[in-house]
Amino acid sequence: MNWYTEQWSKDCRFSIAYDKALYSEKSPFQQIDFYQGTEFGTFFTLDGLMMVNEKDEFIYHDMIVHPAFATNPNIKSVLIIGGGDGGTAREVLRYPTVEEVVMVEIDERVFRLCQEYLPLTAKGVEEDNRMNLIFDDGLAYVKNAKNESFDLILVDSTDPISVGEGLFTTAFYKECYRVLKEDGILINQHESPYFSEYATNMKKAHKKIKDIFPITNVYQYHMPTYPSGHWLFGFASKTLDPIKDLKKEAWTDFGLQTKYYNTDLHVGAFNLPNYVREALIRGE
Amino acid sequence: MNWYTEQWSKDCRFSIAYDKALYSEKSPFQQIDFYQGTEFGTFFTLDGLMMVNEKDEFIYHDMIVHPAFATNPNIKSVLIIGGGDGGTAREVLRYPTVEEVVMVEIDERVFRLCQEYLPLTAKGVEEDNRMNLIFDDGLAYVKNAKNESFDLILVDSTDPISVGEGLFTTAFYKECYRVLKEDGILINQHESPYFSEYATNMKKAHKKIKDIFPITNVYQYHMPTYPSGHWLFGFASKTLDPIKDLKKEAWTDFGLQTKYYNTDLHVGAFNLPNYVREALIRGE
Repeated sequence: MNWYTEQWSKDCRFSIAYDKALYSEKSPFQQIDFYQGTEFGTFFTLDGLMMVNEKDEFIYHDMIVHPAFATNPNIKSVLIIGGGDGGTAREVLRYPTVEEVVMVEIDERVFRLCQEYLPLTAKGVEEDNRMNLIFDDGLAYVKNAKNESFDLILVDSTDPISVGEGLFTTAFYKECYRVLKEDGILINQHESPYFSEYATNMKKAHKKIKDIFPITNVYQYHMPTYPSGHWLFGFASKTLDPIKDLKKEAWTDFGLQTKYYNTDLHVGAFNLPNYVREALIRGE
Repeated sequence: MNWYTEQWSKDCRFSIAYDKALYSEKSPFQQIDFYQGTEFGTFFTLDGLMMVNEKDEFIYHDMIVHPAFATNPNIKSVLIIGGGDGGTAREVLRYPTVEEVVMVEIDERVFRLCQEYLPLTAKGVEEDNRMNLIFDDGLAYVKNAKNESFDLILVDSTDPISVGEGLFTTAFYKECYRVLKEDGILINQHESPYFSEYATNMKKAHKKIKDIFPITNVYQYHMPTYPSGHWLFGFASKTLDPIKDLKKEAWTDFGLQTKYYNTDLHVGAFNLPNYVREALIRGE
């Protein structure tokens, strides 16, 4: 048996068995590796960090997409920054009310390889005529986008190292604010509170977003294959509150089957443990 | 660097670095090992499974104890089954309203060794004059206990193998029902939904409790050092509902500082993901 091992912190390691190393490539941006195993199915890593596996990708993709749509069921235009595996786009495209999805992924190789090795997340995304796939830097894209272009921005990024770094900056979040419409929502991959390196990133990202958006919240989810299994998204908006403006019935009317998300869990996910709350308030 | 490694499933492993193996003993009931590391501090395992470490024991102990007290702030008599590390008793004893705590731990060695190596959880427990420490089998104890003796039973057990096995039986839960008072609450260590072996235990335990108690609920918490990090407690009672009967103000009036639990999180924790809900409804 072969083992893929990820160092979650200096003192903590997580390992997954695989039967076969499917493919490996060094793109201009990062090291990309695909593996195939039994329990976790096919999975891939970027620079040695777990991105997506077939066992629990549904958790991440449910939680990055559905809370925003249950807060504003009239979302028509969506910008996805990153999201090269296609899973976020797949969930967004389930909404018939969505008219346009711009997905800006810096590394085309990630998307092409997922089309080949991970159809669970990538299949059908490119073919949907509402999709506008752009392979470019996310920060450069938002800088050039028009004011108030989008109802929703989903920052589906890696950690703030290497290619993800520019997405965890005040400059980037300011541009996001500018290109969001009046009711616009930003969902940010917000890292994790448990291991100190991730907690530092969480605090930095949150502080930057809080300085720009009038409404900022954080919600949590159980993602067993990410470090500590305790992960967060940031919810930021100009006018909408994810709890007060939650439209349970309207979301249920979409009739979407989901394996993780439901509107009760939506409310619950915003209720954070004290140690997380305090770290977010304290900031850096 | 030395690594303690736990097999979370056939295809998944979790490892923690330690500087020193502090102590090892085979008691009449199980293999007990204490380690000392940097990030996780002192930790101990039973039959090779992580029980308690200094980094995140507060999460488990907050969540096994406080939701019941926020539902019934008049709890006076508490029965702890298991809980040999002392952490559950430590949290219960913080309530000045508690008059009597019976703790029935099958393996005295676990408690004695925690007194020596893990004062964070065990210190002061035996000295509290409200404590009645009994080293015996939990099932045998409840069989001989009088009707309606306790306001609260906390089943702080290992997995349903070896010494924990008798605690995951219908016979045990029936005795719990009998010895609980009219407003009695049972909190059960309910395992985890993600890895199949743990999910099977979760479903079995829940089905048995549901057949006995009129009110049964399940709540979740983020426990990074337990398999998958996604763990559950069962809440069962004769009359009290953990949401409708939640007494936020009364709990806040206790003035307890907690690092994980708060009464908003209490409500949120009962809102489970669809795949967990469905597994619990489907049962075995």
